Amino acid sequence: MLTVWAIGGIPEIVDGDDIAAIIGDAVDGTLEDGDILAVTSKIVSKAEGRVVLAADREQAITDETVRIVATRVHPGGVTRIVENSLGIVAAAAGVDSSNTPDGTVLLLPVDPDASARRLREVLERRFGLRLGVIVTDTLGRPWREGQTDVAIGSSGVRVLEDLRGTRDTQGRRLDVTAPAVGDEISAAADLVKRKSDGLPVAVVRGLSHLLDADALGARSLIRRADMDMFRLGTDEAWQQGFEAGRVARE
Amino acid sequence: MLTVWAIGGIPEIVDGDDIAAIIGDAVDGTLEDGDILAVTSKIVSKAEGRVVLAADREQAITDETVRIVATRVHPGGVTRIVENSLGIVAAAAGVDSSNTPDGTVLLLPVDPDASARRLREVLERRFGLRLGVIVTDTLGRPWREGQTDVAIGSSGVRVLEDLRGTRDTQGRRLDVTAPAVGDEISAAADLVKRKSDGLPVAVVRGLSHLLDADALGARSLIRRADMDMFRLGTDEAWQQGFEAGRVARE
Repeated sequence: MLTVWAIGGIPEIVDGDDIAAIIGDAVDGTLEDGDILAVTSKIVSKAEGRVVLAADREQAITDETVRIVATRVHPGGVTRIVENSLGIVAAAAGVDSSNTPDGTVLLLPVDPDASARRLREVLERRFGLRLGVIVTDTLGRPWREGQTDVAIGSSGVRVLEDLRGTRDTQGRRLDVTAPAVGDEISAAADLVKRKSDGLPVAVVRGLSHLLDADALGARSLIRRADMDMFRLGTDEAWQQGFEAGRVARE
Repeated sequence: MLTVWAIGGIPEIVDGDDIAAIIGDAVDGTLEDGDILAVTSKIVSKAEGRVVLAADREQAITDETVRIVATRVHPGGVTRIVENSLGIVAAAAGVDSSNTPDGTVLLLPVDPDASARRLREVLERRFGLRLGVIVTDTLGRPWREGQTDVAIGSSGVRVLEDLRGTRDTQGRRLDVTAPAVGDEISAAADLVKRKSDGLPVAVVRGLSHLLDADALGARSLIRRADMDMFRLGTDEAWQQGFEAGRVARE
């Protein structure tokens, strides 16, 4: 049985806030060993002072950008889908203009895995429990409408459940199956969080088998460029032997 | 509070099985008004006889393919990422070789929204409850490791929670926010289902606000090609004014 609920009582977060203490106060007395906390990256960014003036938004996007994936010019301006320094592909490099103080925009945390680790260490010590922490962000996807939450930072919880080498009910090897459980936990948490209503943290209970103090962070969910069959329309992809958009080109 | 659990007692499904009756027997006495059932597409395909000989796998992939997105030749053979007739972009057109009877592979259901609708109608009538049904499949993603479950069919439940027009805590319009809750529910269900251990159905409780008898099916989660900024490397994309892979091309 998986249970997921949002935590109330978290105030508007500002630069310098100790969110480990604030979240700890909000969950005090409710956590159990093996629980996972899903924390919206927005409050991590705010606490870490990753705020810039809205007037500097375009420059901020440029500064965060490692690779431009797609650009579209439209009447409302320019939308850029880019890869940022974390390896995350997102609209506007993850620079966020909603639920931010007026006249400002938010950048993603500098190192969300480190942010998750700090949160976990403080909360595990305070409560004497083994916990997992996932820092989530909301991303669009190719080919599909809408957005889902994914894990951009994590600590203490396996984000990729590698089933390669295990066997299916017919005894055959499940060669490529590796559920991205970190992203699935983030998605489950998004169903109860209401970021626009001040519920940026959820508790996920029932997945203690995924807890692992030495687990790789969410950075490990970023696919290496040279392994990415979807990296289309780029010279790298063609050089890797990909044959992209063949139907359309013919 | 969101709770999610897998349903035991579902036998191996074969061509012609009445899965509405089988799932109904397995959940009998446990459902409440507003519950959502997440059903792995594999058992829907099996019941609908969407089985072909493994020897015909390559031809089956070709038959299911509407558009080739990427092809990679490697020592083990050829992997094709393609768009199928449902608009779903998946490796091998969603043709599935795991947990299938020996010597066979499975195609996706012909019309997963219709499959979900039939399931819902039978189960709602049997139990006298309002229910949602989502048919799920496991997909890889560009740029990110591993797979997540998404909704490829649905009935009675909103799969896209359109927040456009609503306002954030600062009173600003959340212009582009539309959580793909159908995919997030599928992901949450995958965390408790163990497809390789015969647990292909999960109950999702706590989201009755998403129930809507007239909701569009999961087909509505497929992005229209002319709205897809990620549709890179294709002539359509360039004609739409996209500037794809600019850094790599320069």
